[in-house]
Amino acid sequence: MPTILLLLDLAGTFVFALSGATAAAGRRLDLFGILVLSFGAGTAGGITRDLLIGAVPPAVLVDWRYLAAAVGAGTVTFFWHERIERLRSPVLVFDAGGLALFAVTGTEKALEFGLAPIAAVLLGTLSGIGGGILRDVLLNQIPTVLRVDLYAVAALAGAALVVIGRLLSVPPLLALLAGAALCFGLRVAAIRRSWQLPAARGPPRDDQRGGRKS
Amino acid sequence: MPTILLLLDLAGTFVFALSGATAAAGRRLDLFGILVLSFGAGTAGGITRDLLIGAVPPAVLVDWRYLAAAVGAGTVTFFWHERIERLRSPVLVFDAGGLALFAVTGTEKALEFGLAPIAAVLLGTLSGIGGGILRDVLLNQIPTVLRVDLYAVAALAGAALVVIGRLLSVPPLLALLAGAALCFGLRVAAIRRSWQLPAARGPPRDDQRGGRKS
Amino acid sequence: MPTILLLLDLAGTFVFALSGATAAAGRRLDLFGILVLSFGAGTAGGITRDLLIGAVPPAVLVDWRYLAAAVGAGTVTFFWHERIERLRSPVLVFDAGGLALFAVTGTEKALEFGLAPIAAVLLGTLSGIGGGILRDVLLNQIPTVLRVDLYAVAALAGAALVVIGRLLSVPPLLALLAGAALCFGLRVAAIRRSWQLPAARGPPRDDQRGGRKS
Repeated sequence: MPTILLLLDLAGTFVFALSGATAAAGRRLDLFGILVLSFGAGTAGGITRDLLIGAVPPAVLVDWRYLAAAVGAGTVTFFWHERIERLRSPVLVFDAGGLALFAVTGTEKALEFGLAPIAAVLLGTLSGIGGGILRDVLLNQIPTVLRVDLYAVAALAGAALVVIGRLLSVPPLLALLAGAALCFGLRVAAIRRSWQLPAARGPPRDDQRGGRKS
Repeated sequence: MPTILLLLDLAGTFVFALSGATAAAGRRLDLFGILVLSFGAGTAGGITRDLLIGAVPPAVLVDWRYLAAAVGAGTVTFFWHERIERLRSPVLVFDAGGLALFAVTGTEKALEFGLAPIAAVLLGTLSGIGGGILRDVLLNQIPTVLRVDLYAVAALAGAALVVIGRLLSVPPLLALLAGAALCFGLRVAAIRRSWQLPAARGPPRDDQRGGRKS
Repeated sequence: MPTILLLLDLAGTFVFALSGATAAAGRRLDLFGILVLSFGAGTAGGITRDLLIGAVPPAVLVDWRYLAAAVGAGTVTFFWHERIERLRSPVLVFDAGGLALFAVTGTEKALEFGLAPIAAVLLGTLSGIGGGILRDVLLNQIPTVLRVDLYAVAALAGAALVVIGRLLSVPPLLALLAGAALCFGLRVAAIRRSWQLPAARGPPRDDQRGGRKS
């Protein structure tokens, strides 16, 4: 079981790092900037989680595999970012993957540290959104979590499913995968929907809504 | 006494969350964005405080009433924000309330954790300014604490009054209320004064001073 | 030995605070804003380090000399900032000094807390870059660590030299000074080099590269 948690955590680090590196490459930062942002985006969620539950020093710092995952994602992006950018919204999709993986691993780790259900859900949600917030704040834009639909809600839903699974004694691996799939599915559906319904609701959104300021 | 501290803390969470939600509503974020920002602004100060004194997991995560206060403030703002925005500078006034309440509860909690007077004052100040900083950084503007007069100083003054009260064996409740009143009064006075004296000192302030960039 | 570590740490606080205060003065913030930013830039690295190794409450809060160093730097800048701004890139040079000092003291403190070599290097690097990141995020610009060459790499190199020195049983003071000199030298060389080679590599950098948005 700890192996599964570690694997999901490393996968989350890798895809969040991809989202950070791709965002950095899109801003024409050089290799150094790309690596810093891939490390920052990949590790912020896990560091937040570990600080909040008192697991210091954070796993990200003591286990070299997190560093390797982040640096690997940065290097891959540096060499292939033109190909990656041809994907549709690559930053958002990698971000959705990281969100989903960190939301469920954060929740599971919080449960293991003895936190109550609501606290574990909140902690999973914070772990999930942490990486994207750091990436966007460092790039001086309004974080995705505030700009797009169903972002924190998707993380909450995935985290809640893990907790519900635990309460119902569902095998943890199943609960983790179901929670991650729910979160990722909600986010990707929201991304696709908002392509087709760019300004569905009420008042016109001002340009801040777009996040990146001109 | 712990009940009073909890009530003041929840009140601080609520008004800081109002300031975050009102700022988010003013930027035309939707309900999700408003709730995220009300939770972020309402809880950042307390999370900062608890991390710095080693009280993990932070009270904000383990006690559901903080979540309820933040979500309540976000919901109220979502439905009534047009009415709220008709108030004068609602973000700044709610912010002043949160600043005052967190400055004194942060100081008191630091004293209870055995910190020395100067450390408790610093910790109270950081707790007070944390929520507003997160709110403004997430909305991609220069934090209020850097832009407006007497912000950190008001928090310092309120925190110092709590410590002085403790040293003089004043009843804690009295010291907390006096400290909060001092901080809130200083800030509101500064807000009103700068309405009337928008550019009193020296060189012309550049547009960054205004905080929100065009 | 602890005395040396404290002295280097205080010196790092002072020069990072100078960088924060000078940046604030350049944005025409007033004395309050300058002091907040000098405190923030001067202490963020050390607070980050102490949170990550579990040394709470952080040294910055419990030892008044850090506060004195930060306030001193802010006051000096307030009165002499026109003279300071006549220096070449004063923010970047002070920043390089703080980066170097915090990178080595962070590494050393992490080693003393029993962290493994790679973790200590990462922690020293994060301590080094923390102050500059907070300064730049608060001033609403893309952090120096993403914008300029050899920033995180210089911190990594300095931190690695301290760890290598420890593994080779070099006297700690020598390792600390050598690490700081390496980091500072790399950064200052990079600053000077990029004056002469402003856009050496590949595609034209977009305006975000310049960091401060118009």
